[in-house]
Amino acid sequence: MPYRRFIKEPTLILDEKKCIANIRFMADKAQRNQIELRPHFKTHVSLEIGEWFRECGVDKITVSSLAMAEYFADRWDDITVAFPINILEWERINLLASKIQLNILVENEKAVTFLNQKLTADVFAFVKVDAGNHRTGIDIHNLNSLEKLCKLVEASPKISFKGFLIHAGESYGARGLRQILEIHESYQNKIKKLKHHFINQYPGMMISVGDTPTCSQAEDFTAMDEIRPGNYVFYDVMQWIIGSNVLDKIAVAMACPIVAKHKERNQLVIYGGAVHFARDNRIHPFLDKTIYGLVVDLKEGGWSAPLHKNYYTRMSQEHGVLQVSDEMFDSYEVGDIIGVLPMHSCMTANLMKKYLTLGGKWIDRM
Amino acid sequence: MPYRRFIKEPTLILDEKKCIANIRFMADKAQRNQIELRPHFKTHVSLEIGEWFRECGVDKITVSSLAMAEYFADRWDDITVAFPINILEWERINLLASKIQLNILVENEKAVTFLNQKLTADVFAFVKVDAGNHRTGIDIHNLNSLEKLCKLVEASPKISFKGFLIHAGESYGARGLRQILEIHESYQNKIKKLKHHFINQYPGMMISVGDTPTCSQAEDFTAMDEIRPGNYVFYDVMQWIIGSNVLDKIAVAMACPIVAKHKERNQLVIYGGAVHFARDNRIHPFLDKTIYGLVVDLKEGGWSAPLHKNYYTRMSQEHGVLQVSDEMFDSYEVGDIIGVLPMHSCMTANLMKKYLTLGGKWIDRM
Repeated sequence: MPYRRFIKEPTLILDEKKCIANIRFMADKAQRNQIELRPHFKTHVSLEIGEWFRECGVDKITVSSLAMAEYFADRWDDITVAFPINILEWERINLLASKIQLNILVENEKAVTFLNQKLTADVFAFVKVDAGNHRTGIDIHNLNSLEKLCKLVEASPKISFKGFLIHAGESYGARGLRQILEIHESYQNKIKKLKHHFINQYPGMMISVGDTPTCSQAEDFTAMDEIRPGNYVFYDVMQWIIGSNVLDKIAVAMACPIVAKHKERNQLVIYGGAVHFARDNRIHPFLDKTIYGLVVDLKEGGWSAPLHKNYYTRMSQEHGVLQVSDEMFDSYEVGDIIGVLPMHSCMTANLMKKYLTLGGKWIDRM
Repeated sequence: MPYRRFIKEPTLILDEKKCIANIRFMADKAQRNQIELRPHFKTHVSLEIGEWFRECGVDKITVSSLAMAEYFADRWDDITVAFPINILEWERINLLASKIQLNILVENEKAVTFLNQKLTADVFAFVKVDAGNHRTGIDIHNLNSLEKLCKLVEASPKISFKGFLIHAGESYGARGLRQILEIHESYQNKIKKLKHHFINQYPGMMISVGDTPTCSQAEDFTAMDEIRPGNYVFYDVMQWIIGSNVLDKIAVAMACPIVAKHKERNQLVIYGGAVHFARDNRIHPFLDKTIYGLVVDLKEGGWSAPLHKNYYTRMSQEHGVLQVSDEMFDSYEVGDIIGVLPMHSCMTANLMKKYLTLGGKWIDRM
């Protein structure tokens, strides 16, 4: 294992082949369905990994903050910030919009009115629609409010109306394929009605939807013009628990030194806690147990499938406790390195700040 | 509010007066009890804030990783790494131990045997004792194993036995003053027996204990030689929920822009989510509701007391949803800045990477 010699502390390992296969899988699916793919780059946040998307034909991206858009703006000239615009950042918006095609998200009149006083560069705007997630956006059934905001955007000298943007956040509460597809189908139906209502008025409008659970599993995207999945670049244990059936596609694993063994509890203690993984956890689908990740053997060319009866069950700031089988307990010593598939790869990568590929190369991120 | 003009995005505000008062409170308590104070610096991880401790007479510190010890080693010459030693970092241990007095933590023979082959510089070692937390350490009742490891340390040419180190992690599960003091009392009793057993053999040994909940509330530390609380430098909502009665001592608040308002749900949506706060949450002690933080008004000279009926109730990667009262809803607009006391200041500070003082000065951290 060429990369092993680099590992002395918690390290985020990237299987570049799995990652590229994930990127290609979604690019192929979008092409097959003749919809635009604007992948969300908040998971990897890496210029270098971004190039792997470009090689699969991607030419526009989504991010979740203006800072992230600024980071990618040297290489990408069409970026959507999929977060209700923070008007306090108007100076940076002007600067960025003078360099690239910047697509922002608006969901209230206040933001549009404010930007009309401040914008010096042209921006495009999606109106954020709430189709059931109830976090941000105008309710999809509230056509009056939607029309009003669209008209305000249209009348804005520096803002062009681009369409509607929706996030089907409920898919993250799904458990199993059927629930994912039910959520997808219900969104498609709502979106068809929205499109029907607005298409004559705005024939060039775009409807942008699409998260990793639904985009990974669904095959019918007829109501949508654009999808924005992001997590699929790496996947993670959470996606498996949701029902994306992706355990063998997870492209990142944490490599963690073992610092203690406790036979009386069958536990291995690793160097690797909340400051490395982040605190995300879920109930294991087959066990009534909260887990923070699944345990794997690191080996030649990558890692094993998750090991039965071995779970990351307790997390501190720097420590993790792995509850393991007798066999596993006996096969690892203090000073060995063990692998853990993270619960939420976006958050783990955000903390780890860089990737070590199986080929032994470091890849930076923002 | 001089610092307000700097704030355009989620920002961690530090009330330096409250912070220094917290630092002084614990220094005074240690002095009054004639015990050593070796504060844990993992919460602030800042050279500059570290100097505020020195001004209160602190001359030795605790950290949770070798990297953190390296960061502080330019200014502090007596550092304990309160984490079971990660033997893979032996080269860095040698380098650091040649510069400062480095105190490490051992809890198994493997680590000591390995270090005996690798150490070129002198280190001091605490033997980690498990007095009920069941994370790491040798069981406090297992005197045979403790003696065996102490002897192995004593026989090590480059390792000097310094004493026993204990973490009363159960205090974090306490709710209310009485439970905190019960845990403290039970630890004191266990420690007295440990001391009684070993004191003749190791008259110079030190027993190091002490977390923020117990050190904040207890007044009797007779069984202990050294305390290592850390979080008290800032405190946070979690400490209040545990029962430390510290709402008015919390020295950090997040300042977050409001990006959306939803009257139908009485919710304010802020720019400030899991990548800023971290995902730590707890059940509110008086409400059957999971919260991520308490809402405050930012105002001249700091912030208000937490506002009744206003809670951070839903967290996404970049967004937060505040469930607020009618009055609160009406008094804030999109583009305003609102304050949130974080659930877990250690984790929030780890993500935010710097502090903006009420005086308008930026303070860096590792």
